[in-house]
Amino acid sequence: MFIHKQTLQYPSKPEKPDADYARKLQEVIGGQYGEITVAMQYSFQAWNSHIPGKYRDLLFSTAAEEFGHIEMLATMVAQLLEDSPLGITEKAIQDDPAVAAVIGGTDLQHAIVSGAGARPFDSMGNPWSGSYVTASGNLLADMTSNINAEMQGRTQVARLYHMTDDRGVKDMLGFLLARDTMHQNQWLAAARDLQKEGNENLPVPSNFPRSKEHEEFSHQAINFSDGEHMAEGSWASGPAPDGLANFTYVETPPEGAPMNPPTHPDARFYGTTELPNTMEKVAGRVQEKFNKE
Amino acid sequence: MFIHKQTLQYPSKPEKPDADYARKLQEVIGGQYGEITVAMQYSFQAWNSHIPGKYRDLLFSTAAEEFGHIEMLATMVAQLLEDSPLGITEKAIQDDPAVAAVIGGTDLQHAIVSGAGARPFDSMGNPWSGSYVTASGNLLADMTSNINAEMQGRTQVARLYHMTDDRGVKDMLGFLLARDTMHQNQWLAAARDLQKEGNENLPVPSNFPRSKEHEEFSHQAINFSDGEHMAEGSWASGPAPDGLANFTYVETPPEGAPMNPPTHPDARFYGTTELPNTMEKVAGRVQEKFNKE
Amino acid sequence: MFIHKQTLQYPSKPEKPDADYARKLQEVIGGQYGEITVAMQYSFQAWNSHIPGKYRDLLFSTAAEEFGHIEMLATMVAQLLEDSPLGITEKAIQDDPAVAAVIGGTDLQHAIVSGAGARPFDSMGNPWSGSYVTASGNLLADMTSNINAEMQGRTQVARLYHMTDDRGVKDMLGFLLARDTMHQNQWLAAARDLQKEGNENLPVPSNFPRSKEHEEFSHQAINFSDGEHMAEGSWASGPAPDGLANFTYVETPPEGAPMNPPTHPDARFYGTTELPNTMEKVAGRVQEKFNKE
Amino acid sequence: MFIHKQTLQYPSKPEKPDADYARKLQEVIGGQYGEITVAMQYSFQAWNSHIPGKYRDLLFSTAAEEFGHIEMLATMVAQLLEDSPLGITEKAIQDDPAVAAVIGGTDLQHAIVSGAGARPFDSMGNPWSGSYVTASGNLLADMTSNINAEMQGRTQVARLYHMTDDRGVKDMLGFLLARDTMHQNQWLAAARDLQKEGNENLPVPSNFPRSKEHEEFSHQAINFSDGEHMAEGSWASGPAPDGLANFTYVETPPEGAPMNPPTHPDARFYGTTELPNTMEKVAGRVQEKFNKE
Amino acid sequence: MFIHKQTLQYPSKPEKPDADYARKLQEVIGGQYGEITVAMQYSFQAWNSHIPGKYRDLLFSTAAEEFGHIEMLATMVAQLLEDSPLGITEKAIQDDPAVAAVIGGTDLQHAIVSGAGARPFDSMGNPWSGSYVTASGNLLADMTSNINAEMQGRTQVARLYHMTDDRGVKDMLGFLLARDTMHQNQWLAAARDLQKEGNENLPVPSNFPRSKEHEEFSHQAINFSDGEHMAEGSWASGPAPDGLANFTYVETPPEGAPMNPPTHPDARFYGTTELPNTMEKVAGRVQEKFNKE
Amino acid sequence: MFIHKQTLQYPSKPEKPDADYARKLQEVIGGQYGEITVAMQYSFQAWNSHIPGKYRDLLFSTAAEEFGHIEMLATMVAQLLEDSPLGITEKAIQDDPAVAAVIGGTDLQHAIVSGAGARPFDSMGNPWSGSYVTASGNLLADMTSNINAEMQGRTQVARLYHMTDDRGVKDMLGFLLARDTMHQNQWLAAARDLQKEGNENLPVPSNFPRSKEHEEFSHQAINFSDGEHMAEGSWASGPAPDGLANFTYVETPPEGAPMNPPTHPDARFYGTTELPNTMEKVAGRVQEKFNKE
Repeated sequence: MFIHKQTLQYPSKPEKPDADYARKLQEVIGGQYGEITVAMQYSFQAWNSHIPGKYRDLLFSTAAEEFGHIEMLATMVAQLLEDSPLGITEKAIQDDPAVAAVIGGTDLQHAIVSGAGARPFDSMGNPWSGSYVTASGNLLADMTSNINAEMQGRTQVARLYHMTDDRGVKDMLGFLLARDTMHQNQWLAAARDLQKEGNENLPVPSNFPRSKEHEEFSHQAINFSDGEHMAEGSWASGPAPDGLANFTYVETPPEGAPMNPPTHPDARFYGTTELPNTMEKVAGRVQEKFNKE
Repeated sequence: MFIHKQTLQYPSKPEKPDADYARKLQEVIGGQYGEITVAMQYSFQAWNSHIPGKYRDLLFSTAAEEFGHIEMLATMVAQLLEDSPLGITEKAIQDDPAVAAVIGGTDLQHAIVSGAGARPFDSMGNPWSGSYVTASGNLLADMTSNINAEMQGRTQVARLYHMTDDRGVKDMLGFLLARDTMHQNQWLAAARDLQKEGNENLPVPSNFPRSKEHEEFSHQAINFSDGEHMAEGSWASGPAPDGLANFTYVETPPEGAPMNPPTHPDARFYGTTELPNTMEKVAGRVQEKFNKE
Repeated sequence: MFIHKQTLQYPSKPEKPDADYARKLQEVIGGQYGEITVAMQYSFQAWNSHIPGKYRDLLFSTAAEEFGHIEMLATMVAQLLEDSPLGITEKAIQDDPAVAAVIGGTDLQHAIVSGAGARPFDSMGNPWSGSYVTASGNLLADMTSNINAEMQGRTQVARLYHMTDDRGVKDMLGFLLARDTMHQNQWLAAARDLQKEGNENLPVPSNFPRSKEHEEFSHQAINFSDGEHMAEGSWASGPAPDGLANFTYVETPPEGAPMNPPTHPDARFYGTTELPNTMEKVAGRVQEKFNKE
Repeated sequence: MFIHKQTLQYPSKPEKPDADYARKLQEVIGGQYGEITVAMQYSFQAWNSHIPGKYRDLLFSTAAEEFGHIEMLATMVAQLLEDSPLGITEKAIQDDPAVAAVIGGTDLQHAIVSGAGARPFDSMGNPWSGSYVTASGNLLADMTSNINAEMQGRTQVARLYHMTDDRGVKDMLGFLLARDTMHQNQWLAAARDLQKEGNENLPVPSNFPRSKEHEEFSHQAINFSDGEHMAEGSWASGPAPDGLANFTYVETPPEGAPMNPPTHPDARFYGTTELPNTMEKVAGRVQEKFNKE
Repeated sequence: MFIHKQTLQYPSKPEKPDADYARKLQEVIGGQYGEITVAMQYSFQAWNSHIPGKYRDLLFSTAAEEFGHIEMLATMVAQLLEDSPLGITEKAIQDDPAVAAVIGGTDLQHAIVSGAGARPFDSMGNPWSGSYVTASGNLLADMTSNINAEMQGRTQVARLYHMTDDRGVKDMLGFLLARDTMHQNQWLAAARDLQKEGNENLPVPSNFPRSKEHEEFSHQAINFSDGEHMAEGSWASGPAPDGLANFTYVETPPEGAPMNPPTHPDARFYGTTELPNTMEKVAGRVQEKFNKE
Repeated sequence: MFIHKQTLQYPSKPEKPDADYARKLQEVIGGQYGEITVAMQYSFQAWNSHIPGKYRDLLFSTAAEEFGHIEMLATMVAQLLEDSPLGITEKAIQDDPAVAAVIGGTDLQHAIVSGAGARPFDSMGNPWSGSYVTASGNLLADMTSNINAEMQGRTQVARLYHMTDDRGVKDMLGFLLARDTMHQNQWLAAARDLQKEGNENLPVPSNFPRSKEHEEFSHQAINFSDGEHMAEGSWASGPAPDGLANFTYVETPPEGAPMNPPTHPDARFYGTTELPNTMEKVAGRVQEKFNKE
């Protein structure tokens, strides 16, 4: 159950309107790594969790916080749009190249569709998609997905920090950056706990029987390009992170297996087949089948 | 530049047709964590890379290998479909519940659209999407994304391993599982190298000036739910993974800031505003503007 | 700010596993009119609201309740999947047509992707999309959108009610149906209040200056088909709901205006133009421009 | 059957080119509430209709009219683009900030893809989607969806009216606004007729047996936020619009039901489970199953 | 302008219900090459046409016919669903594997969302998308797109013909196949006319100045794979279809140009750069910029 | 199997940065007819091919070349972005309308998401979609799709050629134009070979039994619009391209068949039905069914 409180976790107030920047902020609302993604991702991971206790509690808590971050950003967007020229301006103003340039950079749906309000879309106008969410039930995989989400998200917020001079906006972004720092750290700690406490290990999933995978290929760094430096990484020799074997380096891909001959499905799929006379036979067979029907 | 060779990295040959399983395999061809995703993701990371040398070489190499995995899986799908009942069957067969059940589980576009061939779609029929790709230019973030992709991918292949009895299919999956093991290990090693060699560190991005984020919130585990076990994790006390501070635990969210008052954008957006008499004034103002036009 | 509580608004417990039904329930989680849609829609309407007070309070409250409904349904889905055959079954069982039929009707990503967990997708596997959300800033339009969402949603839940015999599921649906009844009623009441208190009226938006629309067409029922009964509705004569005029009926569409001649954009768009000799001239002109460059 | 006539319902001719405005008009061609949506929505509602006579006739008629509106708008877009700078300009012009600003606001696919023609896309470049269409078979729900579509559509056209000074464009928009007024009115009248003639009533669907829903929750305004004004609406007391009961107000959500314990699906989904030693047992069980295979 | 007539171009009446087949027919309503695609494609090509006269007339005519084909198919779908078990069945029936198998193959949204009506979606449940439409303004390219659309469409209808025994359905498909034959022929004829009358020629676009393309590569069949038979096609020697040169065969790709060194964008994008000490310098520079702000 | 080589097929180096143009180039990377589409399309056609030998060899070869073209374009985009103002600029610069105009035209995700790198998206920010791919198994249909793809693609590149003055960019485009010329020619030659060698003929699919289609409609040019010039095309008289009959012209559509009466599915779908008293009966029947449950 979720309860809403009419306060914001942190003040969210710009100094002045800026419709171009409002559009940019949409990325961290409704983009691949925006706040809707993390709020939904942590929620579904909690609902799909097979473990009660600390991991699920952490997921529920962080999910709820992230819903509040959508709110802070949506509030900010609406204020940045409040007194902006969004295409509705006097003619004189529209003819000013500076204003025209600003309008050229706005999200047109902020003006036409939401009437100066925020939207569940990214900075290029793509709607948020449920396909951004990862919740596999395997917690070490999912924690790694969360670490990545917070790294990508923090990188995006850091970039956005340099795209404005508005102190109100920067102040709020400084807060979000701090929370992203925390969330990166907490999912790293959770991944560490999972491995330390033996719930899951490398490679994920760790309890798939090793004998069933072709282990001779499990630690081979095979070079499918012609880069000379690939062998220099710690992935080409020495112990692998999963502790199960040493890496070996294979300079060029082994020969491989012969390709299968092309398939010949039922003639009634009307695929193009090998030879004209086969074709006629096929047509004959099709005809026969029709005659029987 | 890519050069194609008409051999497969590993044999890809089923014992018998199985259209239902062909549909399931589509997930690891064209799904969120399928082979198209990793092939494209590693390619774009290489093209966007700001570092020459071992990381870029590794990315190019693995990208090329993954394109070959799409090929192995597409080949397998076509063979699984080759002699399957895909809806084109004699009436007698269609009335057999066992056959009907099989047809009910197939990908209908395998029959109607591709004529018993593979498609760049997932197991539920969603087309592969460019939005599955992550390539931010920040290599530690991107390597973490890659680790996650290989963990999710290997988990999916492990599940698929249990959904068939076909030895040919299982043999090929055993190979893919091994390569996923390698790829998990290699990206983990790459992330380790990046940190050891000082290219990037935690939290990502590591060279954003710390003084600009509100550090007082950077290591606080604030509980936004009422789970009693959240404080038990290593994320609630002790040193954080980034080594910058100790975690602290905050049992309930602080009060927060008051919500901003609602916005009042230009009346010509026709948003609904506060009071009827204000409304009239607004209408009056709109009318005035019209009169002037 | 959102606070999470680890209780459910109403018990959500099936009597027995049913993977086919779990897939059906996904429609009201992640479909066009599922709970994610209403939770997000009411949230964005609240954040974009230009009026403080009762309307915004109602929107925040209902949004928070709907997030809890996603939770109830996701919980139900995970339980329906818990002990279901999801493709991972012994060979003997897979060969049973009854089991095969069940598996044919399941969401394959429940098995392969989420490992028996709920997903932000609809019953046919489409990811939830931000484009399902309506939040225009015009409250009478948005309340009408909400009424529709609750009508469509309640209709879907009513249909789902007849697709199961599980008493646990039916009990929870009976609760959701009741809340949909309430929400239909409340948005109808809100639309009524908005009009009574003069914030907005018909036609929406009501303060667009009437003189600017071509009023001679504003109440004409023009028949563009050949149905003989169109004139029988109350939309063909008598006073219109907006109270501004009487409807009139026009039996066949008036003649209309002549079509514009085709456009001739810049030749360097390489569109196909009228006449070969014009074409040559165009090519000549292109060539000239090139020569100048 | 549809017959095309080479005339337009109303003149559609701009005074001058304006590529930025052409992009804005795409919203009402291919957006969520654009003309393609209503044309398709009314068509599918007619085709799915369970009632012959006046409702179906009205749906067919309005659908055909809306196809004509797509045509008027597409024609307008092509003309607005005809002589516009769309990126193909002499260098001198491109360096003029005013021209650059204009180009910055254009739909790039107007230039690159359609060669100065209209497209079935919205103003931010999203393709029109079949998921915008509502056609449930329940006519009162669908008429409400139609009222909403015309309200949102008319609001968007009203906003667009203020984003141009072109008299030709404004003239055509004045016509579309009038038809939107008509269509709002007609669907309101149709919803009224349906209720008056007893085909459908509130709450929708009205013939779901009331005893099956948990009626004690059907008229309760429960506050899930902390807004003090929620109780002031007519939704918190007095008779509900469905006439079945009075509203009551519940100030805070009741306690709720305990959360279900986490699920434990088949170990071969490789979800992360509770305890390491359980884990070992699980791995053991998996191994056993493998040994049997 | 479009006028609707309440007759069908050809009878559309199945002998008996068949919900599984109804789902299959959705492919040719709302799929990539379904009737919505061709109706919309020909409409947009007509609206974007730069030539009046016979080509535009043909486009308008065929577009209108295709809208009528959507209608025929939607009507058929609704009838196939009318008395089908769609999940709403007595328990006894649900337990029958034959019925369960049928239900497993249905479109669940036919039951839950449209209440036994057609939808603008394909057979796997993907919504129709505006991105299926091609209308470039270059008529020879677009006619080729149309030929392809009719070839793909006719192939799909031919496949569907073999997936049913219903004589009513087969009768209607026999009609659609005939019209697809006509439409393939007419677009081929139109492409032929365009070239004969000199409006457009090969390669498209034909009036791009030849001297601007690197003609030495314009007729080279370069083999990027190791297939031995590539040289056997008429594309490897002899005159090319555009009549401008003879084909030549190049057995392996030429060496190519060296890859560009990696880019180094502004440090404030926080991409990972080459060397740790560079990194420090970068961080220093970022800090400096901050100090200045 | 694919092998990567760290060279480019042709030099890809701009003279100067140009972020606006980088965005435009995204169209031919990740758009409907961009290089990802053709690379994937030719790959899937090869994997689904039912013929070994020259056609499959050609498909594999061209697929591999196109993957290299994605690489050339992605490399170019990264370089165009390298030193561009992407929103991260000093305040003074941001206030310059010329710079603001440039920024208004950029792809915002180039700055925020990829940190000045290329993306698998089109010029309007839509992710590349698997639904762009055509691979039906019918080679004549698929070759026609390929001809179209190369025509559309070459037209787009030709347009892009005129949108820049950068000699480095133009040089690379001149190369791509030449390869598009080759690819148009080769698919035309392949389609010619297929017909000459009898693998496939017109109309596609050519071995569908002619007697099963209603041949009386197969060569009729029926006018569904009122254009007077439709009869002037070679599609209205004379021999049809398939050689099976002469075209005939039908000036207005024949009367057609009566529409089917509306459907009446199971009352538990809660569709709105004809008459109130029927409605009551329906409700009664629903109630009865409930009583039995």
